[in-house]
Amino acid sequence: MTPFNVTILGSSSALPTSCRFSTSQVVRMNEKYLLIDCGEGTQMQLRRYKIRFSRIDHIFISHLHGDHFFGLPGLLSSFSLLGRERDLHIYAHSEIQDYLNCQMRYIKGDEDFKIIHHPLNFKRTDVILDNKKMRVESFPLRHRIPCCGFKISEQKKDPHLLKEMIEKYDIPIADRVKIKEGSDFITSKGDIIPNSRLTKPSSPPRSYAFCTDTMYEEKIIPNIENVNMLYHEATFADDMKDWAEKTYHTTSKQAAEIALKANVGKLAIGHFSARYKNPKILLDEAKSVFSESYLAEDGKVFKIEN
Amino acid sequence: MTPFNVTILGSSSALPTSCRFSTSQVVRMNEKYLLIDCGEGTQMQLRRYKIRFSRIDHIFISHLHGDHFFGLPGLLSSFSLLGRERDLHIYAHSEIQDYLNCQMRYIKGDEDFKIIHHPLNFKRTDVILDNKKMRVESFPLRHRIPCCGFKISEQKKDPHLLKEMIEKYDIPIADRVKIKEGSDFITSKGDIIPNSRLTKPSSPPRSYAFCTDTMYEEKIIPNIENVNMLYHEATFADDMKDWAEKTYHTTSKQAAEIALKANVGKLAIGHFSARYKNPKILLDEAKSVFSESYLAEDGKVFKIEN
Repeated sequence: MTPFNVTILGSSSALPTSCRFSTSQVVRMNEKYLLIDCGEGTQMQLRRYKIRFSRIDHIFISHLHGDHFFGLPGLLSSFSLLGRERDLHIYAHSEIQDYLNCQMRYIKGDEDFKIIHHPLNFKRTDVILDNKKMRVESFPLRHRIPCCGFKISEQKKDPHLLKEMIEKYDIPIADRVKIKEGSDFITSKGDIIPNSRLTKPSSPPRSYAFCTDTMYEEKIIPNIENVNMLYHEATFADDMKDWAEKTYHTTSKQAAEIALKANVGKLAIGHFSARYKNPKILLDEAKSVFSESYLAEDGKVFKIEN
Repeated sequence: MTPFNVTILGSSSALPTSCRFSTSQVVRMNEKYLLIDCGEGTQMQLRRYKIRFSRIDHIFISHLHGDHFFGLPGLLSSFSLLGRERDLHIYAHSEIQDYLNCQMRYIKGDEDFKIIHHPLNFKRTDVILDNKKMRVESFPLRHRIPCCGFKISEQKKDPHLLKEMIEKYDIPIADRVKIKEGSDFITSKGDIIPNSRLTKPSSPPRSYAFCTDTMYEEKIIPNIENVNMLYHEATFADDMKDWAEKTYHTTSKQAAEIALKANVGKLAIGHFSARYKNPKILLDEAKSVFSESYLAEDGKVFKIEN
């Protein structure tokens, strides 16, 4: 099974604490890593959790509040010092280009790699990356400033050819490709062997959705429906529901309600307010609504599974 | 004895490692903390080593290479979120004002505190802070871009009045102040009691000097002569002397030579290149020249002592 997992690099909201860095996480699909958000200290966390910088070609920034991207200049500087040459794709608000231009003069090393900016669309769902292995969609969240969530899905995989059938009918390679695409097989005697007897469906494509920062917003449900794992912010406990609404954040109970309504496999909550030294209260509240809830604490690795 | 110590928050050069953050340190004098340089992740290190943000009113930035100040926007953001109201003094290259202006729009919270910029002079020695307790001087280092070292000294302290003499001559409070300033005392009978019999000299003022980034530069010696402790960069080992010179950095042996020539009390070396997983080789080389050499590793606290 292709590795598909998420490592939490930072689980704090705006104020980092002694054990929680600002928001950042890295999604591994096969040998590629996608970095989502890049709060201050992201590069230290990547080092700490032994994630190779050279595996990161795509960085997604949900929105331009400093705690979600202040780690970018340092990371780019390190890329440069490490002699990076491969293009780097940054998916963010178009304004980030000006921000980075203002930083580049302070960055050591020679910038030998190209940064390719992909401005996000904050009005509607958009496919922002689509290759053989994966597809990434952005969709609007509801925050004080323009903010996007992201859904990362495996591509639909070809069915598996059944080894015993290939041998039995001595199927040539050219035909195997067609069978994978759905064709039946016609033997030299003219017998039609239906596709369903020759193949076994591959496992359904897995998917992961990332939603921070946002207030409780049911409109996002179609975007995250049935994902195997949902990361959703849960800045506050239920007793601060009014404050959550006022600041465009979510309580852990509300995050769990979204998970339940969207019928996701499991829920990881994060972006905890610094007031919760121990976020267990947030977990308990989420679990009371949706039992498959987990804390997305720094350093935790979640497998995306069917 | 007034507490006077240095906590190392980051000891790495441009590339941070899993156990070494970028340059930053905090100097405690009594209940005040001076922050020197502010590499990415400084605020996390302050949290980790339990240093209260509210005690920091002065930040000194040696030069504008990102690894020495990329932690500033995040720290200012946290000050703001924590409701800071007191003025914050930043001593740095005048350009930092533009840099921070470009950042402020991404910082959460209401900025209720004032930032007072003090542009550094990179041409000559300058007194940049002078109050009852301490005096801070900046002086030019020799790096690829304008860069300053800093010397932090206690102010000369008044001599101690000898309790037994005060009692013996029943010295009034008004006279005690004068005696502290050096006057003799004249008794009601007209006898002159010389100042030297009434007082005991207080311990000499302690001092600490910070020198990074710089190549080997003997011109700095008058600025750091006789300090109780010197922090000096030691990016490379002796076998990389040529490279050190080319990149305007220092080897550990050279740092120790400066310490020896400047007759300092002890030397802490830091700003280690990421190539040294274990900086022991740097320490050994420094010790071969100057025995009172130490590694300024993250989290270490050095007392400034006579």
